[in-house]
Amino acid sequence: MEQQIINNIAEICHQHGIEKAIISPGSRNAPLTLAFARHPKIQCYSISDERSAAFIGMGMAQADRKTVALICTSGSAALNYAPAIAEAYFQEIPLLIITADRPPEWIDQWDGQTIRQENIYGKHVKKSFNLPVDLTHKDAQHQTYRFVNEAIIESSSNVHGPVHINIPFREPFYPEKDAPWKYDNEVPLIKKFSGTKSLLTSEIKSIQDELKQYSKIAIVLGQEQYENEFLIELDHITQKLNIPIYADIISNGHRLKNAIHFTDTIGLRILKEGNHDLIPELVISFGKSIISKNLKLFLRKNVNTQWHIKEHNAFIADPFQAITKQIEINPQYFLAVLNKESSQQFLKDWKDQNDQVSTITNKFLATQKFNEFSILADLIDKIPDKSNLHLANSLSVRYANFIGLKNRTAIKVWANRGTSGIDGSTSSAVGHAISKEKEAHYLITGDVAFFYDRNAFWHKYPYPNLKIILLNNHGGSIFRMIKGPKEQQELEEFFETEQRLEAKNLCNEFGIAHFTAEDEESFNTIKDRFISYPQSALLEIKSDSKINQKIFEDFKNQFKS
Amino acid sequence: MEQQIINNIAEICHQHGIEKAIISPGSRNAPLTLAFARHPKIQCYSISDERSAAFIGMGMAQADRKTVALICTSGSAALNYAPAIAEAYFQEIPLLIITADRPPEWIDQWDGQTIRQENIYGKHVKKSFNLPVDLTHKDAQHQTYRFVNEAIIESSSNVHGPVHINIPFREPFYPEKDAPWKYDNEVPLIKKFSGTKSLLTSEIKSIQDELKQYSKIAIVLGQEQYENEFLIELDHITQKLNIPIYADIISNGHRLKNAIHFTDTIGLRILKEGNHDLIPELVISFGKSIISKNLKLFLRKNVNTQWHIKEHNAFIADPFQAITKQIEINPQYFLAVLNKESSQQFLKDWKDQNDQVSTITNKFLATQKFNEFSILADLIDKIPDKSNLHLANSLSVRYANFIGLKNRTAIKVWANRGTSGIDGSTSSAVGHAISKEKEAHYLITGDVAFFYDRNAFWHKYPYPNLKIILLNNHGGSIFRMIKGPKEQQELEEFFETEQRLEAKNLCNEFGIAHFTAEDEESFNTIKDRFISYPQSALLEIKSDSKINQKIFEDFKNQFKS
Repeated sequence: MEQQIINNIAEICHQHGIEKAIISPGSRNAPLTLAFARHPKIQCYSISDERSAAFIGMGMAQADRKTVALICTSGSAALNYAPAIAEAYFQEIPLLIITADRPPEWIDQWDGQTIRQENIYGKHVKKSFNLPVDLTHKDAQHQTYRFVNEAIIESSSNVHGPVHINIPFREPFYPEKDAPWKYDNEVPLIKKFSGTKSLLTSEIKSIQDELKQYSKIAIVLGQEQYENEFLIELDHITQKLNIPIYADIISNGHRLKNAIHFTDTIGLRILKEGNHDLIPELVISFGKSIISKNLKLFLRKNVNTQWHIKEHNAFIADPFQAITKQIEINPQYFLAVLNKESSQQFLKDWKDQNDQVSTITNKFLATQKFNEFSILADLIDKIPDKSNLHLANSLSVRYANFIGLKNRTAIKVWANRGTSGIDGSTSSAVGHAISKEKEAHYLITGDVAFFYDRNAFWHKYPYPNLKIILLNNHGGSIFRMIKGPKEQQELEEFFETEQRLEAKNLCNEFGIAHFTAEDEESFNTIKDRFISYPQSALLEIKSDSKINQKIFEDFKNQFKS
Repeated sequence: MEQQIINNIAEICHQHGIEKAIISPGSRNAPLTLAFARHPKIQCYSISDERSAAFIGMGMAQADRKTVALICTSGSAALNYAPAIAEAYFQEIPLLIITADRPPEWIDQWDGQTIRQENIYGKHVKKSFNLPVDLTHKDAQHQTYRFVNEAIIESSSNVHGPVHINIPFREPFYPEKDAPWKYDNEVPLIKKFSGTKSLLTSEIKSIQDELKQYSKIAIVLGQEQYENEFLIELDHITQKLNIPIYADIISNGHRLKNAIHFTDTIGLRILKEGNHDLIPELVISFGKSIISKNLKLFLRKNVNTQWHIKEHNAFIADPFQAITKQIEINPQYFLAVLNKESSQQFLKDWKDQNDQVSTITNKFLATQKFNEFSILADLIDKIPDKSNLHLANSLSVRYANFIGLKNRTAIKVWANRGTSGIDGSTSSAVGHAISKEKEAHYLITGDVAFFYDRNAFWHKYPYPNLKIILLNNHGGSIFRMIKGPKEQQELEEFFETEQRLEAKNLCNEFGIAHFTAEDEESFNTIKDRFISYPQSALLEIKSDSKINQKIFEDFKNQFKS
């Protein structure tokens, strides 16, 4: 192993714009650790639990909109990255995963920390490169540099995502003490120019011809890190053309004038009604996943024509079983082609629904006794403008979607809806908080997600700008909310998985200020103090899951058609 | 989805002898959860963090020497199993991993908890089965039952190991409330008879002819769950034939009369010496990995002929680069073929080394001031007979191997040396403790391994028979012990990864009694109380990693040739 070649890898990363690397400690990856940690332009973080490390790195890459490098040692370390990699894959977040490996001659020889690392991430990385073990031949060096260039380019071109480089290292992998150390400026660099696509005149004509036949057009905004210019243009054009935008909470479209925020609730109202006035003839969709299950079902049942606008696609996603056109073009470009007005009445009908649901929701939430749903609404209302709101999976993101951000247009929402796992929400929020240290971050999470990912805090990097709202109902209470499991005798042990943990010990451990609210009074006493607390703090909402269940059901029952 | 078919899967598992299932909560896996949790003969455990769940299940399978089922929901849940599965693969522990999946029509459609689960464990499972989504056709049902039979058989035949079944489920997956429920006795069952192999007369002759030329024969005992009869026979025959047995701590060969316990230390002494008297002409090996690095290097350097005796092999492992025969036969059968005496002097030379090292080690350990290495020796000496000693990876297992179990022949040792990961040692010990509830379990672990795997305790199953000895030196101090990293300026941040956590909060959280020793006096005051404490307890040894480093180096320097 020639340390200079590894240093050049770090330099290539730097020259491609990589600014951060998460390193998990190990010996096999020492040449990488040294090359990255000593690089003057790459900020490195040392995080021991690779599962959290990868989610933290993913959060940083998401916050920065830049590829972050993850570096780990050989063996099962690499496998602990897998959950975050799958999340990054489906959320299209650029990651460069560099795993150190044993040299091939020691695979399957019962050597320590030796597993089968080639293609270890299977179908959840865009590409996987295996570097040569012997770098003495010039061609092997060239191949190494080419692979590294290609991997970085691949992570952030077309569909962004995780890319894997596996590097076998033979001993020795530590340089001599005080050995000279340098980074070559003149590393082999490959840049990719890929231009911009535009539609053919015939394609534009076909789109505009077809548009003429529709008078009820709706837009679905899926989860995506949209460019600001696109959102401004979208706001403008949808107002001009009377097009409602189904913008559930993860879409970050809540600030748009024609946003329909309460798509899940409205879906509940109109799903069975067969309300033909509200059925769009054409759905134009942007981005990726939506979270409103009832909207999804409504569209799946009623819509026959959907055009999906996304510049790059790894596959054809057809969540409403209605797709007829996949238009692979920059979404802002598409808006310039969109020239057909939707009916004013159609927009009004949707806006009326939105206003009605908003009123009913606010009234309902204001009149309930102490419960998670109302408390959350209250807290979301208090979060300062321009904060980042991180929503853990399962019930947290669903509650928040029902509450909506109609009046909180300056809040930015993040949620791991790539795989929708329970596993890394805290870590990715911590990654954001570290990366965007001047912004405020609020995480809403349930006890299962929170305790699952508790190693998010196990490192020395501060996150004074992170506040955590923990809904501790001592179990996965989403299962209590679903008809199926709540009728089974196994509810408590095998679905809800009742657990007794409270966050106090954990907060003590990691130096996080701990606030508790277990009734209206205690909540009112501390809520403002919590929100404005100048250091990292956690507010534990201790509520009764049976009351939560009843209130959430009562809420939804108001809308059921 | 026909619940009865899923019930039959549970019944087939039962009829194949599966007694335990670890279920991680989810909705997609509800039919499996119900089928297993309601089965009267399968003991189910609900554990939320799939990473820990899988290691706990692996520990149980290891303790019981029986296949344990792991059941999880769709999405990244399945990926969190991966580290334990790789460990089980290389340690050859039988696991039946059943992952619920979305139906194929919703893959890549941005649906929640939907990833690409086919073959998700890559090369770290023996086989992976994907069940049909539509079970209405009789052939699909038959295929399902055949796959389940094959998967269970595969997990525990020939080379044991993890086998994966992926089951797509369409909604609805909850039965009606109070729906009738039954298990068919007459499920399709396939049993495998595979007989026993014996060597051909010509093979025996060839072995015995070759044996004649060797007068220095040694046995290497790798990690393996050997049958007791084999060990008795091995003890007998090696005494008769004057054959030394290199039995490092993970081999569990420490009770054998000809055991050489201090192979790592002796390796240090003789590695550079070129001590020809101690070089075996033939090494006969059993089992899998050994941990003594210096022995490995000694054999690799000096030995030309190794026969490996293992009934079933997934690959040819040649850790000493000396293998000439792979003899795939029951090891006890092989002992009956072994008929050549080794030289008495050769055995005596090795035993002398063993005795000398033992004396020097004991003397050394007795005279040091407060440090991890001596404390561990003291504690290991106090552990009651017949206890299970679980050794976490990194420094814990290495310390213990240098200390040895020469006089503690009734102790059984466990260590995750399949992948030698830092990740699941606590969980697998917890799995053992739950499974073998009448036996005492002691886990020796370092702070990195311990805090990494802290979710091992996050469930409701008691482990009063588990005691934990935590070497808390606030970082991965193994890196301080290796020449390479300790000379780098990055030692503390990126190798050792200094961390401030102490176990007190965690013990409070999980109801584990907490003892601390930070000097000789406090250690002497509490050690007996800790060892005999009737509930789960943790002894935190707080020591100075610089002193530990110095003492461990002094220790090893005594032996360096």
